[in-house]
Amino acid sequence: MTAPILHSYFRSSTSFRLRIALNLKGIETDYQSHHLKLGEQHSDAYLRVNRQGLVPSLVLANGTVLTQSMAIIEYLDETIPEPSLLPKDQETRAKARAMAQMIACEIHPVNNLRVLEYLRSEFGAGDSQVASWFRHWVDTTFVPLEQMLAERETAHRFCLGETPGLADICLVAQVANNARFDVDMSAYPVISRINAACMELDAFKKAAPAAQPDAE
Amino acid sequence: MTAPILHSYFRSSTSFRLRIALNLKGIETDYQSHHLKLGEQHSDAYLRVNRQGLVPSLVLANGTVLTQSMAIIEYLDETIPEPSLLPKDQETRAKARAMAQMIACEIHPVNNLRVLEYLRSEFGAGDSQVASWFRHWVDTTFVPLEQMLAERETAHRFCLGETPGLADICLVAQVANNARFDVDMSAYPVISRINAACMELDAFKKAAPAAQPDAE
Repeated sequence: MTAPILHSYFRSSTSFRLRIALNLKGIETDYQSHHLKLGEQHSDAYLRVNRQGLVPSLVLANGTVLTQSMAIIEYLDETIPEPSLLPKDQETRAKARAMAQMIACEIHPVNNLRVLEYLRSEFGAGDSQVASWFRHWVDTTFVPLEQMLAERETAHRFCLGETPGLADICLVAQVANNARFDVDMSAYPVISRINAACMELDAFKKAAPAAQPDAE
Repeated sequence: MTAPILHSYFRSSTSFRLRIALNLKGIETDYQSHHLKLGEQHSDAYLRVNRQGLVPSLVLANGTVLTQSMAIIEYLDETIPEPSLLPKDQETRAKARAMAQMIACEIHPVNNLRVLEYLRSEFGAGDSQVASWFRHWVDTTFVPLEQMLAERETAHRFCLGETPGLADICLVAQVANNARFDVDMSAYPVISRINAACMELDAFKKAAPAAQPDAE
């Protein structure tokens, strides 16, 4: 059977999310890199795959193109149920998705490369203003996320239990991104502990930016 | 049975999304308004409900608090299966979630009130620069979304079929938001047609900002 094609960029944190999920589900892919800073994601050939010109995309063996990391991870979890990336209990599932969306909606899009470039080109933002912007939106959501994780009735190894899932995937990819802008993680001991627990696992290690074929 | 409490603001487009989903599922709620421009979402009482100080939140009859509109809508769809808000076919479900996430991740967070306020306070952006920013991020995602909807093999009444679902919910809430910044919708005939089809339905009409008790 043909392996699915993973359109990725080593440093893209949404690609990092999807790589973790693929590893947890045991899916091998054909890795195709698009260098975002060189604008390779805007090539005509790639725009025919992904109309948004964003990574990641996953092209299934039947040719179907899946886009948007969170949608693809939900698809993987529905089609390959074990190991599950969401808790079984419905209210706990909702909490897992909420924590994932806090990162996927409130932090990542506002700190995406193209947004930072717009700040530079349209508002003349320099490096320090861009870094302040990045850290501001991380802190705005990491403060309540840290509280929510600390307030859980049971101290879990991962965000919502003893196995990693969707929320952990988003957390780890964001923490990796934070390092590029010197976010002070000492304010987030629970997030840091969960990140470390995840990064002990092969599925996370093999998905890390530095472990990709296009890593610089 | 006690009705769930809906923490909302009439103009919040994420609250609009959730109100549509609740109406489609036939769930009555106790509506509690938080005036975002007056900062009422940052009250100590509300921060105990929602650590992020964001609307919407849904407090279930058993006291469980659900946050993040996309996570809450997935919860509603899992616990009240009919009418379904996602297609049955798994690849089509992934496409529905991808279209929804295009709006929920790529447009809405970047154009959120608190981001626009940061542009004003930190970069001295004026009304026209804020409006240009807003329209830029709408167009960046609406252009490919329009293409994706136009390229479907079958011309559906709604985004992915003959009944409205998660993607339509996000689309309608975004189109309503666009009107506040004079987005030129003539470039988006398919999106406009789907929006109009949705707005003929009671579930959407009753969820609209102007129909809420806190509408100004």
